[in-house]
Amino acid sequence: MSKAESKLTELSELGEFGLIDYLTKNIPIVNESTIKGIGDDAAVLKPTADHVTLLSKDLLIEGVHFDLTYMPLKHLGYKAAVVNFSDIVAMNGIPKQMIVGLGVSSKFSVEALEEIYAGIKKACEVYQVDFVGGDTTSSISGLFISVTVVGEIGEDKVTYRSGADVNDLLCVSGDLGGAYMGLLVLEREKQVFKVNPDMQPDLSQHNYILERQLKPEARKDIIKLFDEKGIVPTSMIDISDGLASEALHICMASKKGCMIYEEKIPIDQNTYDTAKEFNIIPSVAALNGGEDYELLFTIKQEDYDKIKEVEGVTVIGYITDESEGEKLVSNDNQLFKLEAQGWDALKKRELDNLTSDKTNTE
Amino acid sequence: MSKAESKLTELSELGEFGLIDYLTKNIPIVNESTIKGIGDDAAVLKPTADHVTLLSKDLLIEGVHFDLTYMPLKHLGYKAAVVNFSDIVAMNGIPKQMIVGLGVSSKFSVEALEEIYAGIKKACEVYQVDFVGGDTTSSISGLFISVTVVGEIGEDKVTYRSGADVNDLLCVSGDLGGAYMGLLVLEREKQVFKVNPDMQPDLSQHNYILERQLKPEARKDIIKLFDEKGIVPTSMIDISDGLASEALHICMASKKGCMIYEEKIPIDQNTYDTAKEFNIIPSVAALNGGEDYELLFTIKQEDYDKIKEVEGVTVIGYITDESEGEKLVSNDNQLFKLEAQGWDALKKRELDNLTSDKTNTE
Repeated sequence: MSKAESKLTELSELGEFGLIDYLTKNIPIVNESTIKGIGDDAAVLKPTADHVTLLSKDLLIEGVHFDLTYMPLKHLGYKAAVVNFSDIVAMNGIPKQMIVGLGVSSKFSVEALEEIYAGIKKACEVYQVDFVGGDTTSSISGLFISVTVVGEIGEDKVTYRSGADVNDLLCVSGDLGGAYMGLLVLEREKQVFKVNPDMQPDLSQHNYILERQLKPEARKDIIKLFDEKGIVPTSMIDISDGLASEALHICMASKKGCMIYEEKIPIDQNTYDTAKEFNIIPSVAALNGGEDYELLFTIKQEDYDKIKEVEGVTVIGYITDESEGEKLVSNDNQLFKLEAQGWDALKKRELDNLTSDKTNTE
Repeated sequence: MSKAESKLTELSELGEFGLIDYLTKNIPIVNESTIKGIGDDAAVLKPTADHVTLLSKDLLIEGVHFDLTYMPLKHLGYKAAVVNFSDIVAMNGIPKQMIVGLGVSSKFSVEALEEIYAGIKKACEVYQVDFVGGDTTSSISGLFISVTVVGEIGEDKVTYRSGADVNDLLCVSGDLGGAYMGLLVLEREKQVFKVNPDMQPDLSQHNYILERQLKPEARKDIIKLFDEKGIVPTSMIDISDGLASEALHICMASKKGCMIYEEKIPIDQNTYDTAKEFNIIPSVAALNGGEDYELLFTIKQEDYDKIKEVEGVTVIGYITDESEGEKLVSNDNQLFKLEAQGWDALKKRELDNLTSDKTNTE
């Protein structure tokens, strides 16, 4: 915050009800399904006929999920909303309504909360989601944001993690590993700043990956393209914890194996260059970095021609029988068991120049 | 916790996914509208035709909303669920599904979380609510619980705060002030315990008010009776912040005034006796104490014969024109302006033996 501390408004000056009224005034309603938003004991929604309701919740906690040293409060609000929208999108659904719970210690000013709310409202505007309720309360220490999102989808289009079948194509949207490399750059600059607070780093060459970390987007656009092209994925998940972990979730839920090709994993040039700068294998950042909020999904082989027309989707492998396990074919054509802790496993490869046994990868 | 610290399981031993799996295994689904509970990116619900969906969220934060010195963890889980069910009930709705977000510091053991979950599950069992999702994550300090509840109600039966009309009867369920007096007893015992930890207080004479504080219930039973008797309240709110504050909410939302009779406010004998012990006017505990989770509602006068048949409902006053303001007629027949800080106002009456001006109560 650049304003002088003395000019800021203390939370206690408004009181609980005053604060909630102040932060939630003039909130627009854009969806027909929202009958009553903020202002009663509960929001009232009118679900669309023949649609199911999707319900998801994520918590973001200061010091665990974000660091206010480098996370601007408006971005934090935006991200808190978007990561929840992403969960709805990962079910092939459209986010429609949102409720926010905010716990704040007295160190935060009213202006700081306004910044967080500005980010949340911006996300609602961009994604056409109605902000229908909230609970703002004091916390003993730190900041936490608890967001619940409600979405909708035609009953026959709900996409679970569990629907992948043998030979289905494994696809991913966008590119991976950027959010993680952005985090590493921010962490490095934080350390530099601690030593020399006058240092003004030029981070412009890292714009792409910093935006991936600080202002992620949910791929609602991809879901809309699915709808236009008549594609219903057989399974889907959003990539919050890294490609490896999410692929294992799909395989476990679907009781299948998979084969992923390292060379097919989409990585942006900025991510690639930064990974090299940090002596990290770029695909490892993609496999284990997390927070990209891209979609990992499977489609039937006959939908291949349709998915080719969806810009920004890459086929990275296919689904196999459960007995085949979850495998990664490396760029040098070796076969690895895919692990959620693949970071360590692959790092070991680099360090030891490990020779793998293609028939025994357990 | 009575077990020796050394026998408890540290959270880190299970890890995030292991912990969530462990805590949420064998969760039953009882409602037809729940298609998919825990285990995917979002829960999937199938709303009943011609019904609206109600959505509410409340946060409970350690040190702000509860004190673990005297709040058993199982009760805390139960209460966290029930206070949210109460918000749905306050819209005349039936709670159906629930999502829980739990932030816990490392001082909590797996066994402690199991206790909280046991309380939540018990509440779900009692109220026939499905536990459909959750997010358990570490916090820097303390414990907080963020619960979101989804409910349902026929579209023509939704009851807002805003529907009260002039001459409607103002009614309350159960009795008031008990939860607050229970809190005062617990706070007193905490102070006694600090001075003399060997003291074993006999709290049995306070059982009723302690249960009101530690294990409140949502009045789903009253909502069911409304349905059976063909009553749709014109407005309703649950009493979480005290009768005065909630009556003001109804008046403000409905743009009306009200007249409440102190002598009609239902107060249990245990509450009454304890209030006297603490030198508190019993009706003041009811007006300002909070956490009773009873229902405050208005009905049309022609429904009076129907409401008489609903056990445990008391008519405490009626709705007036907005220009009349919100008034309280005291036992000694004086007229006071109802205030959310009525505690101070009424206390002042006692202290100063204030003579009010019946025609100028502003």
